[in-house]
Amino acid sequence: MATHKLLLLPGDGIGPEVMGEVKRLIDWLNSAGIAKFETDTGLVGGSAYDAHKVSISEGDMAKALAADAIIFGAVGGPKWDAVPYEVRPEAGLLRLRKDLALFANLRPAVCYPALADASSLKRDAIEGLDIVIVRELTGGVYFGEPKTITDLGNGQKRAIDTQVYDTYEIERIGRVAFELARKRKNKVTSMEKRNVMKSGVLWNEVMTAVHKREYPDVTLEHQLADSGGMMLVKWPKQFDVIVTDNLFGDMLSDIAAMLTGSLGMLPSASLGEVDVKSKKRKALYEPVHGSAPDIAGKGLANPIAMISSFGMALRYSFDMGDLADKVDAAIAAVLASGLRTADIKSEGTTAASTTQMGEAILMEL
Amino acid sequence: MATHKLLLLPGDGIGPEVMGEVKRLIDWLNSAGIAKFETDTGLVGGSAYDAHKVSISEGDMAKALAADAIIFGAVGGPKWDAVPYEVRPEAGLLRLRKDLALFANLRPAVCYPALADASSLKRDAIEGLDIVIVRELTGGVYFGEPKTITDLGNGQKRAIDTQVYDTYEIERIGRVAFELARKRKNKVTSMEKRNVMKSGVLWNEVMTAVHKREYPDVTLEHQLADSGGMMLVKWPKQFDVIVTDNLFGDMLSDIAAMLTGSLGMLPSASLGEVDVKSKKRKALYEPVHGSAPDIAGKGLANPIAMISSFGMALRYSFDMGDLADKVDAAIAAVLASGLRTADIKSEGTTAASTTQMGEAILMEL
Ligand SMILES: CC(C)[C@H](C(=O)O)[C@@H](O)C(=O)O
Ligand SMILES: CC(C)[C@H](C(=O)O)[C@@H](O)C(=O)O
Repeated sequence: MATHKLLLLPGDGIGPEVMGEVKRLIDWLNSAGIAKFETDTGLVGGSAYDAHKVSISEGDMAKALAADAIIFGAVGGPKWDAVPYEVRPEAGLLRLRKDLALFANLRPAVCYPALADASSLKRDAIEGLDIVIVRELTGGVYFGEPKTITDLGNGQKRAIDTQVYDTYEIERIGRVAFELARKRKNKVTSMEKRNVMKSGVLWNEVMTAVHKREYPDVTLEHQLADSGGMMLVKWPKQFDVIVTDNLFGDMLSDIAAMLTGSLGMLPSASLGEVDVKSKKRKALYEPVHGSAPDIAGKGLANPIAMISSFGMALRYSFDMGDLADKVDAAIAAVLASGLRTADIKSEGTTAASTTQMGEAILMEL
Repeated sequence: MATHKLLLLPGDGIGPEVMGEVKRLIDWLNSAGIAKFETDTGLVGGSAYDAHKVSISEGDMAKALAADAIIFGAVGGPKWDAVPYEVRPEAGLLRLRKDLALFANLRPAVCYPALADASSLKRDAIEGLDIVIVRELTGGVYFGEPKTITDLGNGQKRAIDTQVYDTYEIERIGRVAFELARKRKNKVTSMEKRNVMKSGVLWNEVMTAVHKREYPDVTLEHQLADSGGMMLVKWPKQFDVIVTDNLFGDMLSDIAAMLTGSLGMLPSASLGEVDVKSKKRKALYEPVHGSAPDIAGKGLANPIAMISSFGMALRYSFDMGDLADKVDAAIAAVLASGLRTADIKSEGTTAASTTQMGEAILMEL
């Protein structure tokens, strides 16, 4: 059995708690002889700042580059609101994405049947929802230069951010979306603001070309990001795979996640290019939710998004699709049994702590 | 009685139809001696392109600059998808905003009680909703330079858009938001991505300073634009006034409008600075909805957003708040009577065409 190297980066807030439940799962997989994971742990975000005055240390970056996959908790919190911009908690995550070239962020927005009523949307609008947002993750306004604040004198400052996209960046994220659609309902919706942004014009042009040249069998639609956002709120089920840039993807995937009523349940995968020789790809898996500092350390956090992110790692990094299916089934079974963490509790269900939820899922497995 | 100069720019798609109903209202106000409006009409968007190969002619720009207020329909449609970027329909609207320095875009998102069930959100989440999005309209990524597509050779192109904000631009839009909040529930929520964008850092810093210096009596909260978008979907009633940049405002205001279920009903105002001498300000009023080319020319369009936008003109440009209240009341009364255009029809209501709806509102007045 091959040994897989995992780097666990719990981060801040509820990160360590939910990571604990993944650790429990990994330990069991190892001891039951189902898989062979070698785990190492590092610091990222505010916890790295507290220890080393950086958002991630060079040592942990080296570990990240050497790992087969990174399992990431969450970063940030009011405690670090005043730290310098360059070492703010988020910088650690952004550096991981950039240095590992994790350009493809997959964010499924799925409505768990047991939670359909937790959404602010009407049940019929979200019941059975199953879409994926494919967000470009290493380009756009997140990393473009110049990115500066300049003092102009007279009490005036000027802030500049730059959105940059090259053809190849749009092509490769397009391919990820089209490949994914082929395994699903075969439909891709590309979103940009071509009526206002030059990057939107190029995005639209390149998506259209990739589609025509390589994926004519997939349906491709284009929406302006603002009306696409509207359509997402009005009738999300009209979509299958949505592909969009870094910033629009940030907004639209959060909104899609909230629509499902299952925010504490949703995983994500950030993937690099497949290496031609080793056939491996760099990858980072993290829950869609944040570090929730208000409930940290109280055993209230829902570990499902984190466990489910580990499930995505099994599927995308280690070719253990069957095991990933079993993890998904275990989560569904525990939910069906009525067990609920605080964020998803409703009348007639049984309250569970972070640990109780993690243990129940493991028992199910 | 003072004479007010209006420029009507119906634009494309359903624009001319809904503008017709405002024209009817203006004619009546004139003939009943209630007000004295002098109207002129111009072309913008695709209709200007068809006539003059531009998105707005210099002659119409001159009229716009000379008018006391502009009443704008909508622009765009598939017919003009292939026209050069510089003369695409939207360019006319963007030029009006920029050349008239209409930096403050007010977008109320109100849930009309009669339409609460038209939303994809549950009734309790949106019933009674009354928030305003204050969107910066002449800065940011919409107008920043460089804004280019460059051919890099090897089949590669590079697209660049630039987000630029200066202190004074953030200050003045902040003031609009705080002033508005004082007349409402006294709360402003500022949204940006300070964890990723330098313009977000400056935005946050300047809002905080304006608040502290000039509006300490108003409550100010800050949200990251992505989580703010989530909060908007989850429980929009937690907000009063939201202030945000041009691009986030584009997305968030569309989403807020869709939440209400009243998209075809929502007006907007785009305002310039008040001139110290004349006490006047440049202004453009337009519905939040688009040109809806699919239903254009069929008498199906809902004229309420357009009429309500004219109501905003009465209030903000002509100090006729009482008359504006009467227009609002007439709209509410007609809705309560059960009259509905196709976009908002439901069981037990009476179907109305664009004209029938316009006439009914006028009768009510
Ligand atoms: C933490 C932050 C930098 C990040 C982002 O903006 O990408 C987060 O919102 C996300 O969506 O993963
Ligand atoms: C038509 C388009 C240029 C415009 C914008 O993006 O500002 C529209 O979406 C709006 O919100 O008024």
